Amino acid sequence: MNIAPRLPRNETGIKAALDILKQRFGDRMQTGQSIREQHGHTTSWIENQAPDAVIFAQSTEEVAEIVKTAGQHNVPVVPFGAGTSLEGHVNAPAGGISVDLSQMDKVLEVHEEDLDAVVQPGVTRMALNEHLRATGLFFPIDPGANASLGGMAATGASGTNAVRYGTMRENVLSLEAVLPSGEIIRTGRRARKSSAGYDLTRLMIGSEGTLGLITELTVRLQGIPEAMSSAHCTFPSVDAACNAVIMTIQMGVPVARIELLDADCVRAMNAYGKLDLPVSPLLLLEFHGTEAGVAEQAETFGEIAEDAGGIGFAWTSNAEERTRIWQARHDLYWALCQANPGLEGVATDVCVPISNLAEAVRRASEKAAELNLIAPILGHVGDGNFHASVFVDKSDPQAMENSAIYTAWMGEMAIALDGTCTGEHGIGQGKVETLVKEMGGATDVMAAIKAAIDPQGIMNPGKVFKS
Amino acid sequence: MNIAPRLPRNETGIKAALDILKQRFGDRMQTGQSIREQHGHTTSWIENQAPDAVIFAQSTEEVAEIVKTAGQHNVPVVPFGAGTSLEGHVNAPAGGISVDLSQMDKVLEVHEEDLDAVVQPGVTRMALNEHLRATGLFFPIDPGANASLGGMAATGASGTNAVRYGTMRENVLSLEAVLPSGEIIRTGRRARKSSAGYDLTRLMIGSEGTLGLITELTVRLQGIPEAMSSAHCTFPSVDAACNAVIMTIQMGVPVARIELLDADCVRAMNAYGKLDLPVSPLLLLEFHGTEAGVAEQAETFGEIAEDAGGIGFAWTSNAEERTRIWQARHDLYWALCQANPGLEGVATDVCVPISNLAEAVRRASEKAAELNLIAPILGHVGDGNFHASVFVDKSDPQAMENSAIYTAWMGEMAIALDGTCTGEHGIGQGKVETLVKEMGGATDVMAAIKAAIDPQGIMNPGKVFKS
Repeated sequence: MNIAPRLPRNETGIKAALDILKQRFGDRMQTGQSIREQHGHTTSWIENQAPDAVIFAQSTEEVAEIVKTAGQHNVPVVPFGAGTSLEGHVNAPAGGISVDLSQMDKVLEVHEEDLDAVVQPGVTRMALNEHLRATGLFFPIDPGANASLGGMAATGASGTNAVRYGTMRENVLSLEAVLPSGEIIRTGRRARKSSAGYDLTRLMIGSEGTLGLITELTVRLQGIPEAMSSAHCTFPSVDAACNAVIMTIQMGVPVARIELLDADCVRAMNAYGKLDLPVSPLLLLEFHGTEAGVAEQAETFGEIAEDAGGIGFAWTSNAEERTRIWQARHDLYWALCQANPGLEGVATDVCVPISNLAEAVRRASEKAAELNLIAPILGHVGDGNFHASVFVDKSDPQAMENSAIYTAWMGEMAIALDGTCTGEHGIGQGKVETLVKEMGGATDVMAAIKAAIDPQGIMNPGKVFKS
Repeated sequence: MNIAPRLPRNETGIKAALDILKQRFGDRMQTGQSIREQHGHTTSWIENQAPDAVIFAQSTEEVAEIVKTAGQHNVPVVPFGAGTSLEGHVNAPAGGISVDLSQMDKVLEVHEEDLDAVVQPGVTRMALNEHLRATGLFFPIDPGANASLGGMAATGASGTNAVRYGTMRENVLSLEAVLPSGEIIRTGRRARKSSAGYDLTRLMIGSEGTLGLITELTVRLQGIPEAMSSAHCTFPSVDAACNAVIMTIQMGVPVARIELLDADCVRAMNAYGKLDLPVSPLLLLEFHGTEAGVAEQAETFGEIAEDAGGIGFAWTSNAEERTRIWQARHDLYWALCQANPGLEGVATDVCVPISNLAEAVRRASEKAAELNLIAPILGHVGDGNFHASVFVDKSDPQAMENSAIYTAWMGEMAIALDGTCTGEHGIGQGKVETLVKEMGGATDVMAAIKAAIDPQGIMNPGKVFKS
């Protein structure tokens, strides 16, 4: 278990704030060990650092009240959505209060004509899409987990179809947030674009709860496409697959998803999903558009894939066949678990310019071999974003150390290739050191902004920055 | 002539800094009246406030040197690109130094495989597209004027095809900037997405030179589409046209441009361009894609337009015919000038949710009539963004006052309809008061960020904020 630094605790302040808040919130404030640990728990390699209390907030005003009380007693506040973040974002290294926003789960408004919706932060992406079912609209961002929209905004999430629809940055029109002072602000309006002052919406997105708590979001929606098709093609090498990706993007084929799976992933997928794909790098694509459009896109990709040395290209717009191959992709984590019994997966994430993608994947595979690690690679390669899932025996200190070495090395390798140490998982506690290597003096600007907005440093301490 | 407030001048500091900089930059520092006035001049209704000197910088290091010297003597620095901004952005209300970046005009790198380019801030959008001619790629943002890319980033520019390709916010991957301290930072990498810390790229975009000077940009490029088509259709009312826009966007037709021109615009276009369009609201569209795709898109729009009561729908993929109608649109300003001899145009800009667009346009027309103003309306209506061009006799104080009343009223009307006082022109000096009405407490957060990054307040004072 990798240890993130503990920060000094303000015992007196925590006790005073908790006494006041217990009076106010009664049973909606919980201090039992298991619920506290559950709110520190993340699916990362970072040890659990539980908060002192969990409060289930039900309104923006309640959130403001909690933050004001915390501020008066200098106590940390850690926002909690669905608990699906990967870099220790919800840990409480200095203790304090976890504000659980999962009960703020209402879709407040849907504006079908404007293709937007106003939601509370605890609404999950699947709940929103379920709510939209009758409208012909959908919310496109899909990070895999059924994350909350507040959490997705806070971490700057994206996922498989960002290549077509963008990330949270491009899909949030406006936010309501509670600042560390307890003040409630709105960062924008419902207009689809604006040049009115500093872009506080984008500043809050990806700030990982260090500047305030997101209490409402206005998100963009998309029309559900008339037709979808999917395609897959096997390649003799990651290089060949990457060349096909580059040509596809250059030709302007509006792919909705384009995923790369390495041979290890394909082997595990075959075993788990009873498929018989050649054990070699695979590209898996989805196209959205009109009936004629998705056929044209798939066929264009087929020609590109063939030119790049691809074999076994196949495409379909049949819903059942589409689901079969994409279900295997969605089940990949479980397939990899089955292929590596007794080991646990630790995900890491980098993003590089597409022209450097093949080189980055090659280096990552070599490094994993050198460190004796099993680290299958899959990527949202239309953006140059890829993940390695390191499968380790968490009771083996050497393997855990090697996993930490690999993760840190991966971020630096991506930076050396003009990329970033995280395309979509964020900094959290896991990549604080790497962020400084990546951004240099710009991290001082971030710290100056943090100090200006949160002078007491109560908002999610130990994330993004050291303290 | 509308007067923006003058700010206190630091005469001693200005003299000291200018003496030092003259030594350093020689003939590249100019203090003649006409060149100074030219650098304060903007195409807005705000009076010219000339800087004390203009320095033509040729490198990032030179910009840093100028800013450091200015900082040591507490002297304002005003960045200048192509001088095409509309809200007084390049005025110097407290005097100081205009840093002209037009000689930093090199395209430094083009990465065809990654669809990006690294450019200096003085490169204009047309120069970049000329440079890219052989690559099959283009830079899509088109605000009308041949603005510099640094200026377009600083003001958060967009224009006619933002509905498909987004604004500067979505098309800049990374910036290099000189901070008010003279330090040089880089806000990101060449990766197409990142979750690494605060989004300083988007913070700088639209900050209008108040947080630093942009000295390099990495911008996204697009593949030139295989085919383009254009279409136009006349509608009995603005309402009917807006309904067609809403249906088009809802159906997911990937329009590249969708412009609304009111009857006054069409009348002027007819006279200037020798066209015979019905004098009634007009939608003008462009589609990008494959040959089959653009035909399909145009035909789908044709059906929608007919359902919405449109008449005279026509589309073409013939390059000559396309150019003819779009040229008339590009010449609209001159057509309106010809239609209003002796008067000058003053542009204003708002953006509302599309469902409120017809109402906003109706109210704007009524208000113009009430104030006895000629104010034709055209809009990038796929985004709900529209402009009124008020044609006034600048020597008539009553007309000028009414024009100012109309502009201020327009921003507030847009806010009341859940929109923004500026979709793409920015705040500058012209909308400082309206910004506070729109953003409320969020303007205090903007001011806190400004104070943290520019504690002396030397960067472009009097813009975005009062001082």
